[in-house]
Amino acid sequence: MTKKAFPLAKVYGLLEPGPVVLLTTTRAGRRDVMAMSWHTMLEFEPPQIGCVVSNRNHSFANLRATGECAINIPTAKLASQVVACGNTSGAKLDKFAAFGLTPRPASHVDAPLIDECYASLECAVIDTRMVNRYCFFVLQVVKAWVDPAIKDPRTIHHRGRGAFMVAGRTIKLPSRMK
Amino acid sequence: MTKKAFPLAKVYGLLEPGPVVLLTTTRAGRRDVMAMSWHTMLEFEPPQIGCVVSNRNHSFANLRATGECAINIPTAKLASQVVACGNTSGAKLDKFAAFGLTPRPASHVDAPLIDECYASLECAVIDTRMVNRYCFFVLQVVKAWVDPAIKDPRTIHHRGRGAFMVAGRTIKLPSRMK
Repeated sequence: MTKKAFPLAKVYGLLEPGPVVLLTTTRAGRRDVMAMSWHTMLEFEPPQIGCVVSNRNHSFANLRATGECAINIPTAKLASQVVACGNTSGAKLDKFAAFGLTPRPASHVDAPLIDECYASLECAVIDTRMVNRYCFFVLQVVKAWVDPAIKDPRTIHHRGRGAFMVAGRTIKLPSRMK
Repeated sequence: MTKKAFPLAKVYGLLEPGPVVLLTTTRAGRRDVMAMSWHTMLEFEPPQIGCVVSNRNHSFANLRATGECAINIPTAKLASQVVACGNTSGAKLDKFAAFGLTPRPASHVDAPLIDECYASLECAVIDTRMVNRYCFFVLQVVKAWVDPAIKDPRTIHHRGRGAFMVAGRTIKLPSRMK
């Protein structure tokens, strides 16, 4: 996909709706990717994100050791690959090769961006104080990329045990909320 | 709505998809409600939730002082009331009366449950160590209620500045993920 730089101040609108994302890391030259639904915005600008990466995930050690990652947002077209990422461990498998995901170099982090995802956020870990207790990492988005051709992304939203809600129509209401 | 008790172990499936929720509190006999999109699951069971309640919100002081709240999940039918809650402050207004929301007594907390929402979660604040830095509260769900008649809730998901994605169809994939 042809992604363009995206204003950091608008990043919250990508993650607030709660899409399943693919978190990528690279450590010692080995890339990894995991599916993640437990994330929330923490601050608008600079955009800060809190997310849970279980210490049972291979990505946990990567994230902790390198202090960086990318968050890639897939649409329904990628649903089967997303589930495949969730069903497997990067400890033994190169999921990019196994599931046909194309890694692209990022600009600020070593973690790869996934070409097939419509948006990618390069992130630095800025706070690990909640990691021991909740496996909760605080990230700051340092660079964002979005395919401007995708206006109403059909993101997928996990409802548990393999059920995913696919994003439907968008309605507009006169809100004063950011 | 006729809501029934819902297993705590399944609560994550209600919040993982990222719906806009209505957070209710009661303090000194005064009820309040705010719209919230910045929340994430932190643990499956007992279900723990992390959420950002800005200290610019009237609910912030209520939540901090009482240590309890309810999270109510609306569907698209309530979208205009949700936006109205987001556009106003409980400091001067009884939003329940103003926007036609019906408070019902909860079983474990003083915060009211909103009858028009299809699900309500009674919550206790269990960790405030991230409040000063991020306005981030850790909640534990102590009781959950869901209307069992609503199978595919048309939840709303904020995309920023009054744009809401309405939950579309649900697809099922063979996932080993919880």
